[in-house]
Amino acid sequence: MNAANKYSRLKNKTWQLLNPSINKSVWDTAVNALIVSLIALNVFSVIFETVDYINISYGIYFRIFEKISVYIFTVEYFLRLWTCTSEEKYMRPISGRLKYIISFGALVDMFAIAPFYLPFTNTDLRIIRILRLFRFMRIFKLGRYLNATKLITNVFKSKMEELILCMVITLSLIIIASSFMYFAENQAQPEKYSSIPATMWWCIITLTTVGYGDVFPITIIGKVLTAFIAILGIGMFALPAGILASGFSDEFQKRKKVQNTDG
Amino acid sequence: MNAANKYSRLKNKTWQLLNPSINKSVWDTAVNALIVSLIALNVFSVIFETVDYINISYGIYFRIFEKISVYIFTVEYFLRLWTCTSEEKYMRPISGRLKYIISFGALVDMFAIAPFYLPFTNTDLRIIRILRLFRFMRIFKLGRYLNATKLITNVFKSKMEELILCMVITLSLIIIASSFMYFAENQAQPEKYSSIPATMWWCIITLTTVGYGDVFPITIIGKVLTAFIAILGIGMFALPAGILASGFSDEFQKRKKVQNTDG
Amino acid sequence: MNAANKYSRLKNKTWQLLNPSINKSVWDTAVNALIVSLIALNVFSVIFETVDYINISYGIYFRIFEKISVYIFTVEYFLRLWTCTSEEKYMRPISGRLKYIISFGALVDMFAIAPFYLPFTNTDLRIIRILRLFRFMRIFKLGRYLNATKLITNVFKSKMEELILCMVITLSLIIIASSFMYFAENQAQPEKYSSIPATMWWCIITLTTVGYGDVFPITIIGKVLTAFIAILGIGMFALPAGILASGFSDEFQKRKKVQNTDG
Amino acid sequence: MNAANKYSRLKNKTWQLLNPSINKSVWDTAVNALIVSLIALNVFSVIFETVDYINISYGIYFRIFEKISVYIFTVEYFLRLWTCTSEEKYMRPISGRLKYIISFGALVDMFAIAPFYLPFTNTDLRIIRILRLFRFMRIFKLGRYLNATKLITNVFKSKMEELILCMVITLSLIIIASSFMYFAENQAQPEKYSSIPATMWWCIITLTTVGYGDVFPITIIGKVLTAFIAILGIGMFALPAGILASGFSDEFQKRKKVQNTDG
Repeated sequence: MNAANKYSRLKNKTWQLLNPSINKSVWDTAVNALIVSLIALNVFSVIFETVDYINISYGIYFRIFEKISVYIFTVEYFLRLWTCTSEEKYMRPISGRLKYIISFGALVDMFAIAPFYLPFTNTDLRIIRILRLFRFMRIFKLGRYLNATKLITNVFKSKMEELILCMVITLSLIIIASSFMYFAENQAQPEKYSSIPATMWWCIITLTTVGYGDVFPITIIGKVLTAFIAILGIGMFALPAGILASGFSDEFQKRKKVQNTDG
Repeated sequence: MNAANKYSRLKNKTWQLLNPSINKSVWDTAVNALIVSLIALNVFSVIFETVDYINISYGIYFRIFEKISVYIFTVEYFLRLWTCTSEEKYMRPISGRLKYIISFGALVDMFAIAPFYLPFTNTDLRIIRILRLFRFMRIFKLGRYLNATKLITNVFKSKMEELILCMVITLSLIIIASSFMYFAENQAQPEKYSSIPATMWWCIITLTTVGYGDVFPITIIGKVLTAFIAILGIGMFALPAGILASGFSDEFQKRKKVQNTDG
Repeated sequence: MNAANKYSRLKNKTWQLLNPSINKSVWDTAVNALIVSLIALNVFSVIFETVDYINISYGIYFRIFEKISVYIFTVEYFLRLWTCTSEEKYMRPISGRLKYIISFGALVDMFAIAPFYLPFTNTDLRIIRILRLFRFMRIFKLGRYLNATKLITNVFKSKMEELILCMVITLSLIIIASSFMYFAENQAQPEKYSSIPATMWWCIITLTTVGYGDVFPITIIGKVLTAFIAILGIGMFALPAGILASGFSDEFQKRKKVQNTDG
Repeated sequence: MNAANKYSRLKNKTWQLLNPSINKSVWDTAVNALIVSLIALNVFSVIFETVDYINISYGIYFRIFEKISVYIFTVEYFLRLWTCTSEEKYMRPISGRLKYIISFGALVDMFAIAPFYLPFTNTDLRIIRILRLFRFMRIFKLGRYLNATKLITNVFKSKMEELILCMVITLSLIIIASSFMYFAENQAQPEKYSSIPATMWWCIITLTTVGYGDVFPITIIGKVLTAFIAILGIGMFALPAGILASGFSDEFQKRKKVQNTDG
């Protein structure tokens, strides 16, 4: 009716546009698709920019695209900041907005654009390298727009206890195996099995069955130990995969049930 | 009774011969076995033709066998084209046959024989190489004649949603892991971790646990990152195997139930 | 009562001693344990005889032990041949014994001792090498005496259909993947990807995730293809493991039920 | 009331402090956390002491920390020895304590501190190396204080039969595969496939899919054999992982049931 009301409705609409729920309108879907594509293009741009001969030929276009994207993401960031008060938990104009700023999603959004605005007059190259990494935060922005994110979060939450236990067992295994191998191989290959932390590198690459072949035992005792460690340990390293697999299958069955009850 | 009727019955019979269903007659089985063997022999012929010393000694026989096979497959192709009107969806004499020509099965059949009939007077060697690949289309022809095809198609269809989700997670993991590793290892090994796409090669070979050993991290930060990526990521890469396994076991149980109800 | 009866009872007892069933007597167990240990010792003897410095020092003892073992196994073989008529299917004195001789178990027993009795005056060394392999047949003799054998046979029988299907899919995958990779890498690495069968070696070592690193793609198209093949194909290669695992768990549950019903 | 009673109560309390059960008091938790942290710090200290440049700079602090820890663990050892009579099975003052000394837990505790007290005037360096390994026994001390230990023990106990069977199959597979490969590759690579035990190293590294690439077949027959062994054998090596996974999932379900019944 009046201006305040219109303003309030506009704010709510904008918030809904940026945070599509299950019952999407055509507009929601369009905005959603646009931002997802923009993020995907940004990620691909950052990836291919690192290829030298592409960067030399088309670097200028990558820079322009980068600029435009950051402007759009900046607008998105401030629109979200403005409209976040539509949500109940961020309702208060100031304290609510501050609470929103330090939420995980908003931090990702900020870090994804911040490096662009920082001045680099005569900074260390290393800092620039690290700041560039923040541009990859944009891939985490996708999390907001994809359904998969919630599924993965649920699976990890439901299997947390099992996964933590696996981590404890795995870590103990790595420590024990590495210590034994260090004492077995250190004298024969002092530059490869130079310390227990160095032996842990060998241990992880072996027990995950990656086996690059950059480090491997050459003494008989080292080989016998490796054989035992490999046969016993690989089962332990395969456990998290099994646990996650059962977690996903549980989650999918739950979803199918919900769909059947709905239909 | 009359000629038209006889013609129609012949057409139907031919179609049935080439597309055996569950209740096979002796003739169906014989034709089926003949074509399956011919395809298998063709595939083996293409494989062993690439071995130099076999090609030098027996190349002439391979060429003759190739010729005969293509003639038989050509006859099969035109018999199918002629009789496809027996099927309801291709019933119309002209538009039906055109529709059949662009069906997946018919395209495979065509590409499997087409390269043989194209003239190569003074063509580029590379094009011939690519055209030779089409001869492998013959292995896809097997799909029509084997029961396994339907089973695999069913499993993939029933688990499509899960597999797509896995692909999304896997792709995100590869992108994030490769970006971090690129920034960690690029300066130490600029020729191996030359760009993010190059680092993705390392990432896929590591997370699938293949680990050729052509690329591996040498910096401490790179090794620590790899250890984390390997332990966390391998579970994700093992998921599709688990999903497919449960899909196959579901499908087999369904089949056993059907068999029990039938018997 | 009379001699014939006594002879018959002795034959039955001997057969029972050599083929212990579930309700073992003390004697059965003792004979069983003796022969199992003898076979195990023989296997270890053949293994360690190949270590040069062990063979030089203790070769003479290995040869003596070998001689004694073969004599014992020869006695066992003829005792079995004599008493096999106690079993119903080998009941007839002559045709029954001939039938027994060509049974799997009896052939293993024969090949395990035969090489010892063949004269090697001036034979080719290669033939001796191959004949030596037959001594390993003794490990298969263990099959008769261990309960595990039956379990494994059951699991493989119950999952035969699934495993055959897996083999068909796996073989098709290897053929298709190898052909594509051959055309992609042959020109860049003509000595490694020299033919499609040679490329199959690479393909199997990659898809089983062994990844020795003796052959790996170096062209971009080859690497992209490998990435796809690895991600898609590894699931397929992991399927038999899943199928066997479920087969074993089914079999163990069946056994526990039988034990509970018995108890 | 009287001194003997007080002494007895103090002994029981001390025993409870060192062996926390499910209903922990605040004190129990505190002592528990302290000792767990001390053990963890000790393990990290032993690990990082092996890194040369850390040892050079901070070696003196590691040695001081080592000293203090051993003193605390010594006090813990004697407190346990004194109070163990609170437990029914070690109730008798002398024979009970002797029985306790030779229990697994007490032996671990002793070996974890013993090397420190042994005099090394002019001993062989090798013996010192081995004795140093005993310091890692401290990680096993963690077993007493973590809940995970019981879970793992339960899983292994419940799946013992299956795991033993797997070991038998695996061992047979390794022996047979190694023997065949030895005869196939020995002549072509006499220094790598030098004996059957040496070939077993190759076999285990291949069948666990680690595939370092230090040993791989080069003859055609060796490669064909490897392909067969890899495809058939990997399923068998993946079985223990599957068995353990199902064991853990059973155990977790049991626990959840108990928790639900309790709550």
